[in-house]
This record gives sequence, structure tokens and C-alpha cells, in this order.
Amino acid sequence: MRIIVDAMSGDNAPHEILRGVFAADDEFQASYIIVGDREVIETTAKECGHDIRRFEIVHTSDTITMEDDPLSIVRAKKESSMAVGLRLLAEGRGDVFVSAGNSGALFTGASLIVRKIRGINRAAIASVLPFDPPVMLLDSGANLVVTEENLAQFAVMGATYMKNYYGVENPRIGLLNNGTEECKGTELRVSAYKYLSEYDGINFVGNVESNHLPFDTCDVVVTDGFCGNILLKCVEGMGKMVMGELVKLFKASPVSMVSAVMVKNRLREIKHKYDPTEYGGAPILGIAKPVIKAHGSSNAKAFKNAIRQAIACVDTGITYDIARAAEGFRAKKDSENNGEKQ
Amino acid sequence: MRIIVDAMSGDNAPHEILRGVFAADDEFQASYIIVGDREVIETTAKECGHDIRRFEIVHTSDTITMEDDPLSIVRAKKESSMAVGLRLLAEGRGDVFVSAGNSGALFTGASLIVRKIRGINRAAIASVLPFDPPVMLLDSGANLVVTEENLAQFAVMGATYMKNYYGVENPRIGLLNNGTEECKGTELRVSAYKYLSEYDGINFVGNVESNHLPFDTCDVVVTDGFCGNILLKCVEGMGKMVMGELVKLFKASPVSMVSAVMVKNRLREIKHKYDPTEYGGAPILGIAKPVIKAHGSSNAKAFKNAIRQAIACVDTGITYDIARAAEGFRAKKDSENNGEKQ
Repeated sequence: MRIIVDAMSGDNAPHEILRGVFAADDEFQASYIIVGDREVIETTAKECGHDIRRFEIVHTSDTITMEDDPLSIVRAKKESSMAVGLRLLAEGRGDVFVSAGNSGALFTGASLIVRKIRGINRAAIASVLPFDPPVMLLDSGANLVVTEENLAQFAVMGATYMKNYYGVENPRIGLLNNGTEECKGTELRVSAYKYLSEYDGINFVGNVESNHLPFDTCDVVVTDGFCGNILLKCVEGMGKMVMGELVKLFKASPVSMVSAVMVKNRLREIKHKYDPTEYGGAPILGIAKPVIKAHGSSNAKAFKNAIRQAIACVDTGITYDIARAAEGFRAKKDSENNGEKQ
Repeated sequence: MRIIVDAMSGDNAPHEILRGVFAADDEFQASYIIVGDREVIETTAKECGHDIRRFEIVHTSDTITMEDDPLSIVRAKKESSMAVGLRLLAEGRGDVFVSAGNSGALFTGASLIVRKIRGINRAAIASVLPFDPPVMLLDSGANLVVTEENLAQFAVMGATYMKNYYGVENPRIGLLNNGTEECKGTELRVSAYKYLSEYDGINFVGNVESNHLPFDTCDVVVTDGFCGNILLKCVEGMGKMVMGELVKLFKASPVSMVSAVMVKNRLREIKHKYDPTEYGGAPILGIAKPVIKAHGSSNAKAFKNAIRQAIACVDTGITYDIARAAEGFRAKKDSENNGEKQ
């Protein structure tokens, strides 16, 4: 398996990204194409004592920043590490692309350079919420406005991911809403409820409220990218806040510090659970080849975990299975169109 | 001060509601009009050993349930405890109304029976998020679709609340969005950013993301009721999940149980922080008289806390100050209209 890596994007690029790649190289069976500034890559490899001859380096000197317009990836920043990496993926030079850069640009570039799977109207950024069991949220930020058909396709893509990656049989699909009753929510939600209920091949369990999500109500939750982003970041912010409070709790006095030592293993588990660097990246689903968005603030560990996820995405054939499902979307569309014509 | 109470609405009505009223009666300086089934009220008072002669009881036998359509409050359920209570408030028989019932019905009833303050286009349900410092969120569920003008009015109402209730000077207003940059979000958000930036008399600090809300970025966050509801419930769900994990952590072994004892005071503080029964109710702002929505699952303590909040709302003259601010909205509107005519 060949993994294409954007070495130059993200808050801690290139050093932490590269250290993540080297760690992944030590741990996983894969080869790497590193896209970025050759000199920086070689220097960092030397600093880390990592044999650079193991990697193919594709030199670029431009980088997309967090402030750049998403469309810059196909315009002014065509030679950025992200754009070049996506082109390599499109050309079949690698099996999967990982970047910690600007989400909007990555999403736009993936859709326009690598292209969407035929039959998929909109790709989606899919994020795993750290609940027990985990819940996949999509869209978590790319499509601010969606249709019920988009939501149905998100449902199918999310279900494929949960089935292939986590082994969830017949994943339960929930529609994020402000109440459980069928009549709840905006116009879109009311019509989406009906649409999803009647949609073949998904296990729709109805509306779900965000306070019930942590408690095993569904495996996949679908919504527009605006609400999805609010939800995702709320989960992240609450996790961070609570961890901060626990640290304060345990550091308050010598007695509480002793108390912390007594529960330190379980405490570490909770910390891991809410640590965004632990749960890898967010796949962009609906693209013809796997693209993984690593967290913008990825350190080496986070980026290594995103690579782990990239490998699993390829190994479990998620993109292939989504493409197969999308043939069904096209058949459905065709029969609807024929129906209309008659 | 006279407090009108809906004894019959809420998951734990009437017993927990009444026990909350009796506890409030023991603790606060106020008198009460209890609306509900006279026999149930008298029996419960007897059971609790509380002197029923202290209260005015207004008998009703009908109740609005959580499943009832919000508009039923002015139609089929005109004689429900909630509708009767709101009429008493409108007639000036009491200073504030507290109910743990159907939010939609309470909001609709408050808007149609007690009426909105002149100049306010839409009232809003305002919820306090349990952060340090607390953040007021509005709208948290009533207005699924809003305009930028609605959001500006929510900002003024929320700021008035934070100033009067919490003593926050010049409260910072944030617009909930999926990024901090001016260009972020849906069409509404982009135009609302501009509108709020140019709006006189509010301290607009720009877009805020939900992961930053717990960390002192603003005092009031405005959004539509759909996203607000997702956010509010996410905070609630995450709080509940984390408390559940802490309980598991500390109950895991004899050693961890000893550990819990060592930090029990601070642990209790954290528990209180995320306990919805602790932080009272959600005021419906923009109504001509104060109306407080207690949490649907209120127990006696939660309802007592909602009454405490009701008293503070009256004491600090929040409704009066919002009405004064609304005169400014009307003046603005008039001058805009005159400008258009010219």
C-alpha cells in the first residue's frame, strides 16, 4: 500500500507531520510518498535519525494555509503540497492521501481533483464522535446547506464506514433534530424524515437529539455541515473543559494528588477518549479514492493515528463499497427520471 | 411578589412541582398562586405537612402534555393549567409565571396570551450554559428560523439578562458559527455578522465556535433555535456522559472508592455544575411579563431553583429593561421606514 502524505499543512507542519510519518513507517506495513519541501523533509529525517531513502519525495515549495480560500487549491495554489498530493492520488500513484491542512480546501480539492464517486451528489466530511459505542457524524462541516437526498447518501456512506471499519452490522441511522417526533424541526428535517423512512437499504431509526447521542441511540447521525460542525466542536470543547476540570480537581491538594494516583489508569482512559489526537482523522467520504483529513492541530501521534486510519480505510474497501452502493443511487435516479418521463 | 405556578405540567408533576413550591415557600419571601387540580394540591400539601391556607389555588382539571401541539394552548387546551396561569399573569394577578411543561406551548402561550413587548419581533428561550463564566444562549429552541434582526434583538435581550442577573458589565455578544472569520457560515450568518457589527448598543465580538464557548469567549451567544437546541442538548448530554464516567471511575474498585472520598467536595461541585436541576429554568425573554420555563424533568429542587430565578428576574427588572431597549428598536424601525419613504 502506498500512502501519499501532505507534509506541509497543519498547525504543526512540517516537523510533527514528518515525525508522525516516521513513527507510522516504523509501525505499519506501507510505503510513503511525501509531498513538500525536499530540504525540510531531508533535514527533519536526519534530525530524527530516519532513513530518507525509504521514501519517495515529491518536492513542492507552496502551501495552502488555514486562511486560504478553499478554491485556491485549483487556482492560485495549484502547486501547493495539498494540490500536488491530490493529483498524485488521482493519477493512481498512491492508494490514499492524508493531510492536516485547511478542511475546506481539502474537501474542494478532493471533489474537483480526485472527483466524486459517480452517483454521489455531495461528498461529506465524516467525524467519529468519541462515545461508547462511537457515533459517526456526517456532514461535519463541508456542506452548509443540504437536501434530503444528500442526507440519504450521507447515511449510506456513514453506514458503509461503520460496517467496514468497526464491524457494526446494519448500522442505525439517526437524523439530528430538536425532538424525536416525526413533525419536529425545520422544513428540511420534516421532509428528510419522510425521505429517509422510505429510503431502501438504510436502517433509519428516526430523529435523534444531541443529548441522547452519547447513549447508544444510533451508529450514524446525519445533518447539514453547519449543525454538524457546531455539534462536533461542542463535543470537543466539552471534552476539553471537563478534562481541565479533572486536572484542577486532582491537583487541588496533596490529598487529591494521592487520589489521582489511585485511579490513574482509568483516568488515562478517559483522557484518551476525549483527546482529538487519539482518534485519527476524518475521512472525506464519497470521493473516488480515500482522503483523510487529520486534525489541524495534529502532533506526531495524531498524524500517525490518521495514517493508521488511512490504512484501515483502504484495507476494508470502504471507497469500493460506497461506489457499489452509489450504483444503486444511479439506478434509483434513472428509474425516477423514467417515471417522470412516462 | 406574587408567583404564579403551573402545578400540573412536567415529567414529575404534580408532586415534585408542589414539593418545590413548598420548599420555595419555606425559603423565599413571596406569595404563590398555584394553578392545577385543587384536590391533588390539597392532598399533596397535607402529605408534606404544608399549610395550604398560605396559597391561592386556582382550580383547573386540564393539562397540556408534552405531545400536545403548541397551538393547543389557545385552542383545545384553553383551560389547561398552563393557559390559565398565563392568563392570570396577563391580567396582572401575579408578577411572574413558572411552568415545567411543553416548551413550545409555553412559548406560544406566552407570546399570544401575555404578549410580546412592543418592538420585539420574536421572543426567545434563553438558556444558561454551565460554563465558567456562564454563557447565555438564545434562542435555545423556539424560533427554528430567524432573521439577522431577530438575532440582534436576542443579543440585546441576552445582554440585559447577563447585566441584570449576573452583573456582567457590557456583555460580549458572539454569533455562533462554524469558524471565526467574517466570511464563515451560511448566508444568514454572513449577513448577520455585518448586521450585528453595525448594530448600536451591543458589544459584538464576532463569530464564536462551539468549542471555544466554555473558555470565556463571550457572555451571550446568539443563533437560531434549531442550532441552539442542538448545542444546548449537546452540552447537557456531554455533562451527563462525563458524570457517568466519573461515577464508574470512582466505583471501579475499593481503592478508587477511597480516592473518591478524598476529593468528594470538589467532585460534588463538578456534579452540581452539570446537573440541570441546579441551574434553574430558562427565561422566555421578550414577553411583556417574566415567564420561566423550568426543565421538563424538574424534581422539587429544580423547581425551587426555577422559582428562585423567577424572583431574581422580577427583582432585577429584566423585563422592564428589555422593554426600555425595545423602544430603541421601534425608534430605529421608524427612522428606517422614514428613510425608505424619503
